Parts: sequence; structure tokens; C-alpha cells
Amino acid sequence: MSVLVVGTVAFDSIETPFGSAERILGGSASYFALGASFFTPVRIVGVIGEDFPQDYIDVFNQRQIDLEGLQRDKGDTFHWRGRYHEDINLRDTLELHLNVLAGFEPKLPEAYRDADYVFLGNIDPVMQLEVLRQLRSVKLVVCDTMDHWIHESQEELKKVLQRIEILVINDSEARLLSGYDNIVKAARAILKMGPKMILIKRGEYGVLQFSDSSVFATPAYPLEEVFDPTGAGDSFAGGFMGHLARSGDQSQGGLRRAIVYGSVVASFTVEDFGVKRLTDVSLAEIEERYQRFIDLTDFHS
Amino acid sequence: MSVLVVGTVAFDSIETPFGSAERILGGSASYFALGASFFTPVRIVGVIGEDFPQDYIDVFNQRQIDLEGLQRDKGDTFHWRGRYHEDINLRDTLELHLNVLAGFEPKLPEAYRDADYVFLGNIDPVMQLEVLRQLRSVKLVVCDTMDHWIHESQEELKKVLQRIEILVINDSEARLLSGYDNIVKAARAILKMGPKMILIKRGEYGVLQFSDSSVFATPAYPLEEVFDPTGAGDSFAGGFMGHLARSGDQSQGGLRRAIVYGSVVASFTVEDFGVKRLTDVSLAEIEERYQRFIDLTDFHS
Repeated sequence: MSVLVVGTVAFDSIETPFGSAERILGGSASYFALGASFFTPVRIVGVIGEDFPQDYIDVFNQRQIDLEGLQRDKGDTFHWRGRYHEDINLRDTLELHLNVLAGFEPKLPEAYRDADYVFLGNIDPVMQLEVLRQLRSVKLVVCDTMDHWIHESQEELKKVLQRIEILVINDSEARLLSGYDNIVKAARAILKMGPKMILIKRGEYGVLQFSDSSVFATPAYPLEEVFDPTGAGDSFAGGFMGHLARSGDQSQGGLRRAIVYGSVVASFTVEDFGVKRLTDVSLAEIEERYQRFIDLTDFHS
Repeated sequence: MSVLVVGTVAFDSIETPFGSAERILGGSASYFALGASFFTPVRIVGVIGEDFPQDYIDVFNQRQIDLEGLQRDKGDTFHWRGRYHEDINLRDTLELHLNVLAGFEPKLPEAYRDADYVFLGNIDPVMQLEVLRQLRSVKLVVCDTMDHWIHESQEELKKVLQRIEILVINDSEARLLSGYDNIVKAARAILKMGPKMILIKRGEYGVLQFSDSSVFATPAYPLEEVFDPTGAGDSFAGGFMGHLARSGDQSQGGLRRAIVYGSVVASFTVEDFGVKRLTDVSLAEIEERYQRFIDLTDFHS
């Protein structure tokens, strides 16, 4: 079972209290794909510019990540520059150069059009709808978004929400989208917009899952070093869908275990700059931390 | 097994976005005692003024709460006035009248001096030390504190920390006391100050427990209505110690279950103003929500 992701493949320039890095590999599709590739083959739909180096292509090639849907356009690659505060949960965007992303029209290769699992990364809802239009069949669609699209493209976003199974969103975005401060009310309101399930990311505080039949809460794995939070949410989604695709288990328990796998993958992501930790961690280490996650949270056995 | 608590018995005047209340029953010892009394007999050491009404005494008398150690002094009862923001996790202290608390010298009745479980509520560390001095024997001492004492009485507080088993503290206070932003590092540093275990309260995000042999993380019970967060932390500690005293189980699993019972009690506390919900909820409702807590967090069965 492969997972299809549409999203950004980018250069990130990042400053944190612990150091800085220039034009490293980033973007929602990159983090998602690397996170999911521990568990299942991944296909990327996205765009890069002429300046995108072979070294970064090789990062994907070293894993079961198919790049037939990653088109190279004239111009420069999308580039984000951000700075994290002393409180590592806060960040400012310093520069945003859309470059080739500005004219991007996603085109799914023929082989991608029968997808089992699809992740609509955080891009313009118009592009997310276009991807859905090109799909012939699909088992499960998961979608991410952000405050910018909630403000600027809410009508299109709501069309997307009517066509997906699971929305992944952070807590402040859930409040913004729903109009409710209380997170339980926010989740209930968003479920009425279409998704069967919502996963609310709370950073170092973990994840809340809501559906009509289940409420699940899990803490984040406590870390002594959080080096760079970039990509935590996308690699969470990658681990979540990757494990779902690997297990084929969409029971309530199966979905919960997938959430924990996503949390484990995200906990590795933030341990080093950019995608570095995702490229050197092993599946065995992920499985080991999953077991530790059970120890971390178990109180009734 | 009874639990002894030393702390404040107070009038609270509270404004929240949902309403306000004048001079209702409050104070750390009150919330703790009511929270613990579902599970075990409680003894209060504290002080009230001449203006403290019989109605409030009756709240304790209706439960297994012994008031021999609650002295009535000349003057008025300690009175706190606070206002919660739209973001209910934030509050301002508008007025603080120490009144009889200013000259309080805790005196343990003879029958209290062989205590099994002792909770040193959030009061001056000098008073906490005085209570410890008067105890002949004790099984388990749990202590709370706040930013004020960390700033003003850190030397005395550190003496207390060397003589207790468990410190209950919120996350910002743990950062302040340790000097570390990262909560794992903060917990490790505080464990070196003496306590065998630290419980870090994170409000709507739950609780983290650290000891040399265990790290446990639990979310808070998600609530659609948080009416008044006052007393959540103290009633958490009450539920925690009350269950420990009831079960006598200080194994790793037993301590974790006590943390969850504390979380359940706190989740009821915030559902209404002041101690109201704690006075009308039943042990059966608490046990039922404990079972729901298992459903909320379980992913591996």
C-alpha cells in the first residue's frame, strides 16, 4: 500500500537558540514523505526549481520515495526563512519566497491516480481540490491546513473538508476555524464541516483525536533536547499514515496506534536540524520508542 | 488511613468569563480536603477568622473531614480576589488579604502527630517546616509551592524539599525553581534537590511524573465546559493522596493510578464555581470517569 502526498518541497533557512542552517531540505511533502517511508512506499506530488540540488533528490532516493510526481519548473525552489524564540514553541517567518510554487499546477502521473492513501499537505485548498479531482479512486484522504488558508480561502477549504476523512490541524488553527476557544467544542464544530475525524496537534503537549465514536488523548514523548521543531507536524502525519498503510488497520485501536507512531516519528524529527534525524534514525529505533511510549502512558496494567 | 493537610481555608471572590461569585469557600486545604475525602478521612490544619460562617464548616462536616486542627483566630479570614481571562488558563490576582493567615502558627493536635499521609499545601515554607517538626512519624509527605515562595523563601523551600517524598508543582514554577526551560531537564534538576518524585501540573494538558525509575505522562480529561479553574491543582493533589491512602499501593502502577484519580477529581472541580461540583459529585461518578479515562488514553489493548 503506497501513500501519496501533495505538498511543498522547499529550502528552509532556520535559526533556533541552538544554531542555524541555510537552505536545508524542507517543506511539508519532504517531512511527510520521510516520516511515512519507514513504514510504506511514498509518492510525492510537488514542484522544485532549477536550483534544487541532486544531494536533496538523493535523500528521497535512498528511501522508498517515488519522485515521478515531483516536477521541476523554471525558476527557483520555494524558500522559507524562520527564526525560533527562546521558547522553542514560538517562531517568526522572516522571509517567504514562493518562487516556482506560485504557478504550480499539480499533475498526477497516470500511475498515481489510483491511490490508497492520500495526504493533502498544507498548500492552497484550490490545489488540494485539484488533486482530489484527478484521483480515480482513493481509500483514505487526510488533510492539513494553516491559519493563512483559514483566513484567505475558507470557502475552498470548506469544500475540501467535505471530501476528506481526517483533518490534521494544530490547536490554535482549530480555534480559528471553528470560532470556539474550548478545544472540545472546536473539534465538534469542525466534525460537522465534513471530516469523520480530527487530529489536533498540541506540540509538546501531544495530540487529541475526536470522532463521533471516539475521543483519544495522548501526550508527546518528553524530550530533553528539542533542537528544531520544524516539520514535527508533517512528520507526525507521515508516521500516522505510514503506519496505517502498513497495518491496514483502521479500527479504533489501529487508528490510535497510528497516532502514537506519528508522535514517535515527530519526536525524532525535532532532535536535530531539518530532516537530519529522519534520515539517520532506524525503524528499529522507532519501534523501540513506541514500546517506551507504552511504558510512558500505561497506568492500568 | 487518614490524610493530614496543612494549607489555607479562605474566602475566594472570583470572576470568570462565565460569571462571578463573592466570598465563596476556597483555599488550598479546602480543595485538597474535599478532593481527598471521597477516598479517605482527612484532617485539616489551618486557620479561619471570626467571620467564617457555619455553612462553610458544614461543608466539611458533611464529609469525613476532621476540623480539630482548624483554629479560629481573632480577625478576618484570608480572602483572595481573582479574575480569569477569556483564555481561562490565565488569571490575575486583584486583591489578597492575608488577615488571620499573617500571624498563623500551625499547631498539630496530639492525635494528628502520627500521620500516615501529609500534604503541605501552598503556604510559607517556614510553616511547612514547622508542621514537619511537630510530626512524630509519617509515611509519605507531599508538598506544593508557588512562584512567590520560590522567589522570596527559596532557602527555606529547599530545606522542605530535602524532607519530602513528592513535590507537586506547575510547569512554569518547575522552570522557575530549576532554571531550565526544558521541562525534562527542569524535573531532573528538581529531583536532585531532594524529592523522590515530582508531579508537574500542566493544566488542560495534563500531568507529567518523574522519578529515578519512571516517567509517566497523562493528558487531562477533555471538558466541553471549564467554568472555574480555581482549586484544580489542590483537588488534584487531594484525589492523588486520597486514592493512595485508600489503596495503600505505592507501586509504580499504584502511583500512576493515583495520578489519574487526581486528574479525574480535578476535572470535576473545574465544572462549576468554587467547591460546588466537589460537594455534589459522587464517588460512583468519579469511578465512572476513571473508567472513561482508561478509554480516553488506551491504544495498546
